[in-house]
Amino acid sequence: MDIYERIKCKDLLDVVLPPTEVVKKHIPRKGTIACSGMAQMSTPKVVPIFLAKYVEETGEEFKLNIYTSGSAAPELDGVLARVNAINRRYVYQNNPIVREKINRGITHYYDIWLGEFPRQLKYGFLNDVCGPIDVAIIEAVSIREDGFIIPSLSLDNIPLYMQLAKKVIIELNTAKPENLEGIHDVYSPQPGTPIPIVRVNQRIGVPYVPCDPKKIVAIVPSEALEKEIFYGKPTVIEEKIVDNLFNFLLDEVKKGKISKSLYPLQTGIGPIGDTVAAKLIDSDFTDLEIWTEVAQAGYLDALDSDKVKSLSTSVFMIPPEDKKHGERFLENLAEYKKSIVLRPLEITNNSELITRLNLIAMNQAIEIDIYGNVNMTHVLGSSVVNGVGGSGEFARSSYLSIFLLSSTARDNKISRIVPMTPHVDVTDHDVDVIVTEHGWADLRGLSPRERAKEIIEKCSSPEYKDELWKYFNEACRKVGGHIPHILSKAFSFHERLIETGSMK
Amino acid sequence: MDIYERIKCKDLLDVVLPPTEVVKKHIPRKGTIACSGMAQMSTPKVVPIFLAKYVEETGEEFKLNIYTSGSAAPELDGVLARVNAINRRYVYQNNPIVREKINRGITHYYDIWLGEFPRQLKYGFLNDVCGPIDVAIIEAVSIREDGFIIPSLSLDNIPLYMQLAKKVIIELNTAKPENLEGIHDVYSPQPGTPIPIVRVNQRIGVPYVPCDPKKIVAIVPSEALEKEIFYGKPTVIEEKIVDNLFNFLLDEVKKGKISKSLYPLQTGIGPIGDTVAAKLIDSDFTDLEIWTEVAQAGYLDALDSDKVKSLSTSVFMIPPEDKKHGERFLENLAEYKKSIVLRPLEITNNSELITRLNLIAMNQAIEIDIYGNVNMTHVLGSSVVNGVGGSGEFARSSYLSIFLLSSTARDNKISRIVPMTPHVDVTDHDVDVIVTEHGWADLRGLSPRERAKEIIEKCSSPEYKDELWKYFNEACRKVGGHIPHILSKAFSFHERLIETGSMK
Repeated sequence: MDIYERIKCKDLLDVVLPPTEVVKKHIPRKGTIACSGMAQMSTPKVVPIFLAKYVEETGEEFKLNIYTSGSAAPELDGVLARVNAINRRYVYQNNPIVREKINRGITHYYDIWLGEFPRQLKYGFLNDVCGPIDVAIIEAVSIREDGFIIPSLSLDNIPLYMQLAKKVIIELNTAKPENLEGIHDVYSPQPGTPIPIVRVNQRIGVPYVPCDPKKIVAIVPSEALEKEIFYGKPTVIEEKIVDNLFNFLLDEVKKGKISKSLYPLQTGIGPIGDTVAAKLIDSDFTDLEIWTEVAQAGYLDALDSDKVKSLSTSVFMIPPEDKKHGERFLENLAEYKKSIVLRPLEITNNSELITRLNLIAMNQAIEIDIYGNVNMTHVLGSSVVNGVGGSGEFARSSYLSIFLLSSTARDNKISRIVPMTPHVDVTDHDVDVIVTEHGWADLRGLSPRERAKEIIEKCSSPEYKDELWKYFNEACRKVGGHIPHILSKAFSFHERLIETGSMK
Repeated sequence: MDIYERIKCKDLLDVVLPPTEVVKKHIPRKGTIACSGMAQMSTPKVVPIFLAKYVEETGEEFKLNIYTSGSAAPELDGVLARVNAINRRYVYQNNPIVREKINRGITHYYDIWLGEFPRQLKYGFLNDVCGPIDVAIIEAVSIREDGFIIPSLSLDNIPLYMQLAKKVIIELNTAKPENLEGIHDVYSPQPGTPIPIVRVNQRIGVPYVPCDPKKIVAIVPSEALEKEIFYGKPTVIEEKIVDNLFNFLLDEVKKGKISKSLYPLQTGIGPIGDTVAAKLIDSDFTDLEIWTEVAQAGYLDALDSDKVKSLSTSVFMIPPEDKKHGERFLENLAEYKKSIVLRPLEITNNSELITRLNLIAMNQAIEIDIYGNVNMTHVLGSSVVNGVGGSGEFARSSYLSIFLLSSTARDNKISRIVPMTPHVDVTDHDVDVIVTEHGWADLRGLSPRERAKEIIEKCSSPEYKDELWKYFNEACRKVGGHIPHILSKAFSFHERLIETGSMK
């Protein structure tokens, strides 16, 4: 389809520009650029590549602060990091080149909750460090007559970025479906005003992103689709983790604590998240609702089966290679617009709504200590892997906070249940239940010493259980206290790993 | 005044009973007892003393789970812990005898956020561990004709405890003013329903605690007033901390980030909290509002000076020895009922409202690490001091999260800025600004390495600055990573303290 047909606001036809010109004219050498996209979806994939080329060809120095709302596609993160153009990278990343530069202290990384970041931006908290947003680069599928934008299947922080940026560049993607208007719900919270959402699929805002057309300095044609994101099929262990999760939840239903419809679920992506979405379909639960920041195409099956009746998310992830879901989504788009709502992160991750809707939060961890503290981000306390995402926002304000992980990693060389985590993202106070392939530890109402027994007994690997008991018993005997720890041995598992390559 | 005049519901006159009889008839040997009060105010102070006497005299074994909403007076915690009657002590304590038993692993302690606790109770999360609430013992100042209760100046979890308990015992305190009806606002959040509060002093509920009169099995006369709580006058250092806090906030006003009315302040008690309340009066701020869990009598001066225009809290702390404020409060009670609202913790600490009202949260810490992680509760990682209170609820969902502490303790033998905290209550993600007597570190938008420089340079004591720099530089050089740490030396300050009695 012709790009001009997608620009209904005819005043904007003049700013359709080739990316080389956009780079020269509108990208500052030093400054802050906010880009659409998260979960590697809806990242601008043309301007950044031309920018990187320009840097390579001219040798000019670029020192940019790159904002996204979550992980960016390699067409942004990878190419710009490779040419050393990224000074600061806010707010979440999972790109190997960016990660390496962060861990070397070259790129500054601000790893903050996904819902807190737009709030901080809105109140000018980052101005002292980053200055205002010079340019927003936003992937869109069409521009309305009034100049307002219809984004692709990620709403993330697009409305705020377009509002705050001095200039806006649109990457108009004609390879993506045009008729997405009506799936987004754009609304920004104001202090002192209740957010009027009381149902998961309720719409309270407008179906487009408002923007002063004068700010749109360029429209760049794009036909770039996301590259395949392959994180592997779920393993037997991951299947078991999800089975245990479901058994725990069914137990809650049996005990009469909650109905079979549960409360709205906050779920994630990756093999475990995909397995949750898939297994819900044949589960005993009914009339489920999903309220999350990232949802995957698999939920279309759950919606079609009537097992899930509504879904609210910031990004709906249908990778281009998943033709089955992609086609079905387009065929039934009008229907899906009734059950699926894409919201800005200011809404999906808002504590007001997480509290009110009484979410069941399910997050994953790198490691958890015997008292229930969670490390989601850092290996050996120092090296960041990805980032916290919105996990802590959900864990803190939800009805129930569940953490999922396998008991070991790297062929059992690593125990993911450890005496003390050398990095804490979510404290024991916000962890209700831990699920591994061995079972679940229900920590609600338990003192730390009771939690340790529950976690070691129910969740740890048989290969590490004795060592964990040994640490705990020795700490109780030699040090005591409310949370017994021997400081000189608290990281013994990690130090052994550094020395020998294994925690054993 | 005669106790019978305060019981307007004449059916209840029959259950006025002496405490000895109440203990024999209504206190189970094993079970869960929920008591009114927090910040040592409004604790039942008669039945627990007679219970302790009974235990001592008969030698019978009592194994009780004692719930309060915050710290209890020694007439509850001290006397029952001394006779070993406390099996579990939920949710916050600051009693030396209880603390000692917790740290010896004798008493189980569930140190969870003050607003999360009632939510967990409401949803039956503690039933598996503690069973239902057998008895609620509630201090009240009068009983209405309909049998509904007017509590004293703490509303804490009283409404929920009375709703959930199988039996209710009222300690009717005739030494406290009777005419408090109208200062409380009783409302309980329901999932899916917005809490309609949009102003700090807005009333949305009823001015009494509803209770089925049939559940009230006993009314015990009480004339017990709280013992003096003395935590010392603010030191020069504490005064400096508050001056730095105010200078930081004024700076925000100057930068145009916020108006002179700020947003509602969440403040605490103790010397620093008292100094904040006192210094607000002569500050440049105007039309302030306070939204907190515990507020002190000093705020009456701020209200009278029109500097503070409204105040919402769960307990309003006027100790009996503070006759000046006590008398003024009673004289102008009708006026104060317009500006002061006492709310249940389900409301004061509710993330929905903390977010919506855009609070400025100010909390205190035992120690903070160079990357901004906060330990509020545990000495050397193991021994609990008090508890987390609602700190993390405010820090997580507020507009701005500030932590206040002196840079050293115990004659400079302890640095409260350390390489790594061996216990984390609030993670760096929820810490915006740290204030000590030396200055403030504004961490917003900074990467961990930048945060370390800011914290060491602006907040640490000159006596420890070099050592902190040494650790940080060595960690950057030898380990690197996003958050450089040398695991074998991360607790070197603490281990030195254990070995030599000083971190130096």
